[in-house]
Amino acid sequence: MLGFNIQPTDKSLREAIQHKIDNLNKPKGSLGRLEEIAMQICLIQQTLEPSLQHPCHLLLGGDHGIEHEGVSVSPREVTWQQMINFTRGGGGVNMFCRQHGFKLRIVDVGVDYDLSDIDGIIHRKIARGTRNFLYEPAMSEAEYDQAIQTGCDLVDDCIAEGCKVICIGEMGIANTSPSSIWMHLFGNIPLKDCIGAGAGLDTPGIRHKYEVLSKAVERFKAGNYEPLAYFGGFEMTAAIGAMLKAAEKHLVILVDGFIMTACALAAIQLYPAAKDYMVFTHCGDESGHKLMLDAIGAKPLLHLGLRLGEGTGALCAFPIVDSAVRMINEMNNFDNANITKYF
Amino acid sequence: MLGFNIQPTDKSLREAIQHKIDNLNKPKGSLGRLEEIAMQICLIQQTLEPSLQHPCHLLLGGDHGIEHEGVSVSPREVTWQQMINFTRGGGGVNMFCRQHGFKLRIVDVGVDYDLSDIDGIIHRKIARGTRNFLYEPAMSEAEYDQAIQTGCDLVDDCIAEGCKVICIGEMGIANTSPSSIWMHLFGNIPLKDCIGAGAGLDTPGIRHKYEVLSKAVERFKAGNYEPLAYFGGFEMTAAIGAMLKAAEKHLVILVDGFIMTACALAAIQLYPAAKDYMVFTHCGDESGHKLMLDAIGAKPLLHLGLRLGEGTGALCAFPIVDSAVRMINEMNNFDNANITKYF
Repeated sequence: MLGFNIQPTDKSLREAIQHKIDNLNKPKGSLGRLEEIAMQICLIQQTLEPSLQHPCHLLLGGDHGIEHEGVSVSPREVTWQQMINFTRGGGGVNMFCRQHGFKLRIVDVGVDYDLSDIDGIIHRKIARGTRNFLYEPAMSEAEYDQAIQTGCDLVDDCIAEGCKVICIGEMGIANTSPSSIWMHLFGNIPLKDCIGAGAGLDTPGIRHKYEVLSKAVERFKAGNYEPLAYFGGFEMTAAIGAMLKAAEKHLVILVDGFIMTACALAAIQLYPAAKDYMVFTHCGDESGHKLMLDAIGAKPLLHLGLRLGEGTGALCAFPIVDSAVRMINEMNNFDNANITKYF
Repeated sequence: MLGFNIQPTDKSLREAIQHKIDNLNKPKGSLGRLEEIAMQICLIQQTLEPSLQHPCHLLLGGDHGIEHEGVSVSPREVTWQQMINFTRGGGGVNMFCRQHGFKLRIVDVGVDYDLSDIDGIIHRKIARGTRNFLYEPAMSEAEYDQAIQTGCDLVDDCIAEGCKVICIGEMGIANTSPSSIWMHLFGNIPLKDCIGAGAGLDTPGIRHKYEVLSKAVERFKAGNYEPLAYFGGFEMTAAIGAMLKAAEKHLVILVDGFIMTACALAAIQLYPAAKDYMVFTHCGDESGHKLMLDAIGAKPLLHLGLRLGEGTGALCAFPIVDSAVRMINEMNNFDNANITKYF
């Protein structure tokens, strides 16, 4: 297991930041959540003049052995088909990266298909999908370390380009299943409250998913296993590695929907201070996402009923985060605007 | 009273639009509110390829006679000071217009200060503030018509430049007071539920505001008056004119916070079909805003605790609306992406 040096953000600047925010020419507190986000980003970057330069998006793809149990409405081939689609610019993640100026890295961490001759994909495949955690650990310890390292390397590449804000998304059919289990285990939330429709299961489908995941958790608990490698997807484990490296390096981390929130929960469980670097961008439509955000103590920025994944919700929230940074950098204050101070 | 020809959007394209949205390469419904917004904009523009070209923002300024009753925590001089500040680019509205590519028009419709030699302001002053509606109608019928016409003219100017989406904001100390009264009268909501802190009143301040507004409503009801001219601000009446003209001309209207929602409610009360053209962008922090949105049957896009006014909330929501339009225009569908259809 790789180690990280993740410190809570230094709060000694808090008063100076608050003074700057309160002296902007607006009624105190009137920009609501933007003021909170500005405070958080100033603390992450230890500055009164924060910046979101060179935003990067990691789109991590991987398949899941548990998909063989019929827990997902979509077949696993959608993972590789979508990965190729992303290289052609036609996916949700592509549109929103273009809209908000994110550099997109499409990474094969564990897709069950040979993508090696596809241009536009970064090839870091660990295996062609994880093993089926109904019967055995999804990945070995060595594979787990490799996935964590992959996330770290990707973030290091972004930092080398000058990146200050990172967004992480996933493509992996069936990955709500391990997410629900992590939510259950790390959030202490009853398993049935952690399981939802995914991309579109009906009620019998959800019941089947619950039965499969219950059995998997039961077998896991009977052994002496570590829950990250036991249940994780390669793309999810790489996301944890990316989040931890980003926190270590004081990047702003935009946390997406249900799956990425489960990864954030896992990262926080390993390193509680990592939470200081995370902006929880939206509460999605997947049942349980709100409960998981509550367990983390996170207040998401958007509630738009999104459940596409790929990091699309986090990308949609980026302009709000950008507005917060513009507020503290660009807005006049009561002194230079010659305005009677509001209360 | 000026007349408008405002028709509900023609719904005959609904099925074709829904088919296009459902065939985009994503699980059906997985882009949540973006899909609803895309539908609305396609219906407004009567096309399957909508556009938000040349977004314009009208910042309308005016003062209020009722301010003399101590209903606002901020003094009226803040109105003109802020109008000048906006011409210098340092206000909240300026930042967000820059961020999202809106052309900003700063319009003096009724500020109680001589702004005639200030460059960067469009001079359409009707009077130096309204009269005090605790004792008499805020404006005459002729002034009311002039304010409505001003809003129409401004929208016509935007349309002449190719504008497809308009955002309206206000600057007018004390304008939560007439907004609360319109909410009470048009929304059939008890007056006490319509009154909040504005820019920062304390509890005794709110009680005083309630007493003043109660008395004003009582006197209004004793006479044979028309509530728009009786209570309205010039900037609010111009906003109603702008909304009605925009609806007539099939623009997308981004409705901002408490005050602009009160104007939207007034516009809908005059022409119910105007609602089809309105995107309710956010639920602000002003007590009662949620109740008013509920009365309209509006589901706001953002909940960020904003209460600055100036149209800033609507501007902050613009990228979400833009994402919806990009979704339907740019996202691949299941045919051209070669993807197994999700359910």
